[in-house]
Amino acid sequence: MKIGLFGFGCVGQGLWKVLHETKGVKADIVRICIKHPDKQRPLAPDYFTTNPSDILDDPEINIIVELIDDADAAYDIVSSALKKGKAVVSANKKMIAHRLPELYALQNETGAPFLYEGSSCASIPIIRNLEEYYDNDLLTSVEGIFNGTTNVILTKIFEDNISFSEALKYAQKHGFAESDPSLDVDGFDAKFKLCILLLHAFGVFVAPEEVLNIGIGRLNDFDIQYAKSRGQVIKLIARCYREGGRIVGYCIPRFVPVGHHYATVRNEYNAVTLESAFSEHQTFLGKGAGDKATGSAVLSDISALRYQYKYEYRKFIQNGTSFDTSEAFLRIYVRHQYEGQVKDADFISIEERYAAADTRYWIGHISLQKLQKTSWLNDHGVSVVELAAS
Amino acid sequence: MKIGLFGFGCVGQGLWKVLHETKGVKADIVRICIKHPDKQRPLAPDYFTTNPSDILDDPEINIIVELIDDADAAYDIVSSALKKGKAVVSANKKMIAHRLPELYALQNETGAPFLYEGSSCASIPIIRNLEEYYDNDLLTSVEGIFNGTTNVILTKIFEDNISFSEALKYAQKHGFAESDPSLDVDGFDAKFKLCILLLHAFGVFVAPEEVLNIGIGRLNDFDIQYAKSRGQVIKLIARCYREGGRIVGYCIPRFVPVGHHYATVRNEYNAVTLESAFSEHQTFLGKGAGDKATGSAVLSDISALRYQYKYEYRKFIQNGTSFDTSEAFLRIYVRHQYEGQVKDADFISIEERYAAADTRYWIGHISLQKLQKTSWLNDHGVSVVELAAS
Repeated sequence: MKIGLFGFGCVGQGLWKVLHETKGVKADIVRICIKHPDKQRPLAPDYFTTNPSDILDDPEINIIVELIDDADAAYDIVSSALKKGKAVVSANKKMIAHRLPELYALQNETGAPFLYEGSSCASIPIIRNLEEYYDNDLLTSVEGIFNGTTNVILTKIFEDNISFSEALKYAQKHGFAESDPSLDVDGFDAKFKLCILLLHAFGVFVAPEEVLNIGIGRLNDFDIQYAKSRGQVIKLIARCYREGGRIVGYCIPRFVPVGHHYATVRNEYNAVTLESAFSEHQTFLGKGAGDKATGSAVLSDISALRYQYKYEYRKFIQNGTSFDTSEAFLRIYVRHQYEGQVKDADFISIEERYAAADTRYWIGHISLQKLQKTSWLNDHGVSVVELAAS
Repeated sequence: MKIGLFGFGCVGQGLWKVLHETKGVKADIVRICIKHPDKQRPLAPDYFTTNPSDILDDPEINIIVELIDDADAAYDIVSSALKKGKAVVSANKKMIAHRLPELYALQNETGAPFLYEGSSCASIPIIRNLEEYYDNDLLTSVEGIFNGTTNVILTKIFEDNISFSEALKYAQKHGFAESDPSLDVDGFDAKFKLCILLLHAFGVFVAPEEVLNIGIGRLNDFDIQYAKSRGQVIKLIARCYREGGRIVGYCIPRFVPVGHHYATVRNEYNAVTLESAFSEHQTFLGKGAGDKATGSAVLSDISALRYQYKYEYRKFIQNGTSFDTSEAFLRIYVRHQYEGQVKDADFISIEERYAAADTRYWIGHISLQKLQKTSWLNDHGVSVVELAAS
C-alpha cells in the first residue's frame, strides 16, 4: 500500500509516526502534498510537493489520505482520486456532509472505496459499526454528544463553575476551539456528523440545511443554575430517530440528570447511543476531538483497505424511509427576556411559565418544524434546551 | 441461509421472532433440536426433533445456531457441525473459553466459520470490533464490567441500600441469577469472557484455570460503607493488559469513584473499556445479559455469515506476546477478621492498617501470583477489592 497524503498538520504527522510504530499495517506514505513549501518540516524535502498532480497522477500511489481544512479543495482532491480509481480516506466532516450524494455516486461509478470513519466522533468506530453490526437490527435511534469543543466548554461551566466566555477562552487556549468558534458552538459541526450518520444508520441522504441546529452560545447563568438546582447538566445532543416510516433529526442542547452516562462524558470525549428494538440501549464512548483520536480512525480505515473493505450503504439500498420532520414534536425550555418575545401561538401546549424582572422561561411542547421557522429562535436573549418527555 | 437451531429457550424463541420481523436478513430456521419433546411449543411439531443428526446430517442446512446450556454437549454439536463444513454461531461462553484452542484448530482444518459475539458481553459488539477495528491500533488494555448478574446485585446494594443477600434474592427473583449463583457471583462467568477477549485483543490462548477470579460473594456491610464514605462504589472488573511483551489478566472487584462512567453502568448493563496508545480510552456500553441482548448478537453473527465473515485471529498470527503474570502487581484493600489471618510477608508493602474488634483492613501492594496462591484469599471473613494505583 503506497499512500499519497494531502496535508501534513498534526493528524498527518501523527499518522506518519504511527505507521512506523505499528507492525500490523504495511503501508508507506510515499508523497505529501502541502500548501506552504517554506514551512520547516520534520522530513526530507523530496517527500513534499505543492502540486496535487504529483500524487494524483502517480500510478504507484493507490491510496489517497485527505487531511486538509478547506472543504471545497478537499472535495476536488477526493473526487479526482476516486475517478482515477484510487482508494480514498478522509476525515473532513463538513465536506462529506455536504457532498454525500455525489460521493456515493462516485463510489458506484468508479468502484473505488471511500472511507471516512474519522469524520464522525473521531476515534469512535461508529460508521463501521452502523454499516456492519447494526445492519440487521431494528435500529430506532442514534444520538449523542458529537462535538468535543462544546463538551469541553460545558464541562468547564458545570464542573469548574466558570462562565461561558471564560470556558470558551479556556477551550481556545487549549486548542479545542477555533478563533471563530461558531462552527462548533452553534452546533454545525455536530450536525454535519449527524448528516453522515443519518445515511449509515437509516439510509437517508439529508442536506445539512434541512436539519435544525441550536448551539450553546446563548446559554447564560440562569440556564446553568436552572439545570444545577434540578440535579442536571446541559449537553449538546445531536439526535436522529425513526418513527413509523419517517426519519427525524436535529441538534439541540438537552438537560441531562447527573446520574446519566452522558453526564460522565467530560471534556473532548464524545458519546454515541444507539437504540434498537432488540438490543435496547448501546453506547460508544471515546475521544471525539484531537489529532490522535482522528489519526487512529484514519489508520483503521487504511488498515481496512488491506481487505478491500468498502461501505455498502445497505440501508439506503434496502430502505423505504425518508427524512420527514412534519410530525416531530419536542418538549423544550425557552428562556427569554421580555413579554411577547416568544409567541404563545407557536406552542402546542405550555406547562410552565416563569417571569421575573429580566428573565422569563416557558416549558412547553412545540413542533420541530415550527421551532425551525420561528423568528424568536435567533433573538438575542433567547435560549432553548430540550427536556425529556414528561 | 437455512438454519438448524439447537435449543429453543428464550433466546431461541426471540431469534425466531426477530428473523421474521427483520427485512435485512433472509434466513430461515428450518429445524430445531430440543431435549424435552413433551414441552408445549409455540410452533408446529414437525419443526422439532430430539435427534441432533436430523440437523447435522441435513445437507440443506448450512448454518448451525447452538443455544443450549450444557457446555460439553454444546462442544460436541459445534465440533461436529464444523467438521461437516457448516457455519456455526454460539453464545456459550463457558464452552468457548475452555475449548478455544480446539475451536481455532477446527476452523483452520475445515475452513468453516465459527462466530460467537453473543458469548462476550451479549449485545456489545466487542469481538467484532477487536477483530476488525482495533487490529492495527496499539492496544494496551481491555477491561470492564462483564457480568450482568453481579452488576444487578452491586447496583441494588449501592443504590437501594440493601444487603448482599437481599440483593441476590432480588436478582434470582428477576431471572438474573441461577439458583446456584456461584458461576456469576464468584467471577467465573466474567473470567470466561475475559479468556475469549484475551485471544481477540492480544492473540493469546489462556485457559480459565490460569486466571485469578475473585468474586463479590464475601463483600460485607463494612466494605460497602468503606466505599460509600469515600465517594466510591464497587464494581466487578475483569481486566487484561499488555506490559512489554507480557499479557496479564484477572477478575477482581474494584473501588470506582461515583463520577466515573463505570458507576453509571447499572443493573444488567455491561461496559468494555479499551485503551490504546493512539485513541486513548474508548468504552462500549450495552446490555450484557438477557435474551434479547444475546439474541441481537446471535442475529448479527447470522447476518455476517451472508458475507462469508469469519474471525481471522490476526493478533494470534502476528503476535510474539505471551500470557505471563510474573511481573504483575496490584494495590488492594484486604478486609479480614483477626490478627494473623492475612500474612504480612505476602505483601510488598503495606500503606494502611486498620484494626477494630472484629474487622481489620490493610491497604497494600502485592504480586498477582502471590495473591493467586495465598491460602487466606479463600478464608471466610476475607474480602479483596482492587484500588487505583496511588
